[in-house]
Amino acid sequence: MVTRRQAVSGMLASAALAVISTPAAPQELAPIELPPPRREGGMPVLSAFNLRRSIRAYANRPLSPQTLSDLLWAAFGINRPSGDRTAPYWRHVMVMDVYVATADGVWLYDPKAHALLPHLAVDIRGQTGRQDFVATAPVNLVYVAHGERMTDVSPEDRRLYASVDTGFIGQNVYLFCASEGLATVFRGSIDYPKLAQTLKLPDQQFVTFAQTVGYPGS
Amino acid sequence: MVTRRQAVSGMLASAALAVISTPAAPQELAPIELPPPRREGGMPVLSAFNLRRSIRAYANRPLSPQTLSDLLWAAFGINRPSGDRTAPYWRHVMVMDVYVATADGVWLYDPKAHALLPHLAVDIRGQTGRQDFVATAPVNLVYVAHGERMTDVSPEDRRLYASVDTGFIGQNVYLFCASEGLATVFRGSIDYPKLAQTLKLPDQQFVTFAQTVGYPGS
Repeated sequence: MVTRRQAVSGMLASAALAVISTPAAPQELAPIELPPPRREGGMPVLSAFNLRRSIRAYANRPLSPQTLSDLLWAAFGINRPSGDRTAPYWRHVMVMDVYVATADGVWLYDPKAHALLPHLAVDIRGQTGRQDFVATAPVNLVYVAHGERMTDVSPEDRRLYASVDTGFIGQNVYLFCASEGLATVFRGSIDYPKLAQTLKLPDQQFVTFAQTVGYPGS
Repeated sequence: MVTRRQAVSGMLASAALAVISTPAAPQELAPIELPPPRREGGMPVLSAFNLRRSIRAYANRPLSPQTLSDLLWAAFGINRPSGDRTAPYWRHVMVMDVYVATADGVWLYDPKAHALLPHLAVDIRGQTGRQDFVATAPVNLVYVAHGERMTDVSPEDRRLYASVDTGFIGQNVYLFCASEGLATVFRGSIDYPKLAQTLKLPDQQFVTFAQTVGYPGS
């Protein structure tokens, strides 16, 4: 356990050592072991294509642990012994992280452990986008790229390839939500510098897009 | 019907009028009305996530008209009376076209008519990518963006947003193929200037990515 004081002191130390990127202090949050994802079932895939759409009105109702587990696995979980994922990725280099922002805080999805690692004990949902519904919908996924892993590539191309990788993941989320009767919308209207600061992202990491998930509201 | 001579003469005329972008002459090809897409059925969506992967070995066996119909509808077909699609798109501006390259030629997918419009009566499959399998796999989808429809956006951002829209479509193709036992791979290793020239794309249009589809081979 890290006390708040130690955490703050740690953050100050890491701010002084700007080149060393330490994760933000996950005060008061514990890791969450997700239940195993279902990996089968759901709506027939053509029916899911038929229902896929963007929804911008959400109920406050949270997702169950099983639904969150299935959602994250469908989005970018491991589906093979090779460690490969439900979505393809750029030149076999894994650059995307999926963060989960809820009323309780922010977690990093760890596909290998299929668990949520604590990142911030703060409700930052309202900062994940410019639209009002993001602040109250139960889940906002924030897609973050490790630019430092994309070597020999211009900054523009880093952003481009990471964004395409995000599109694959986002479409998985759309189809999972269509199957489960959930609402979702993939979003690019974000105060990017502010969100990167809130998430305490190291220099070379950047947010590509965000995606709200919840039950449809009115 | 347009004779070859008229078509050539038309191409020369359009070359002279460089600002006016006319489609390439579709010599000898007729439009193909696709059978209605199934819009329901297929594998349960979580099972499709479980099987999704990239495959780079293809049999020569062609796709049936029904499979091609379902594939194109799943990729970027109309799934609502509003005209919206199975994949989301940038700021409600429809910028992506899906071209279908087969042994018989190149067609443009028309989602409204759910038909294939003739574009080129030439087998250009080998030019849709740098890998050998692209020349013999039955179908290569080529994703083309209308840059001119993205106003007030820098060229880098046009490429980025169109590429993300392509990612959504590409993931639909991956999941449809997983469900149907088809092989597919989304590809960015392309001689872009050469392919744009081969497709006779107007100045503001550009290829984002390509995707091979067929039956798995050895």
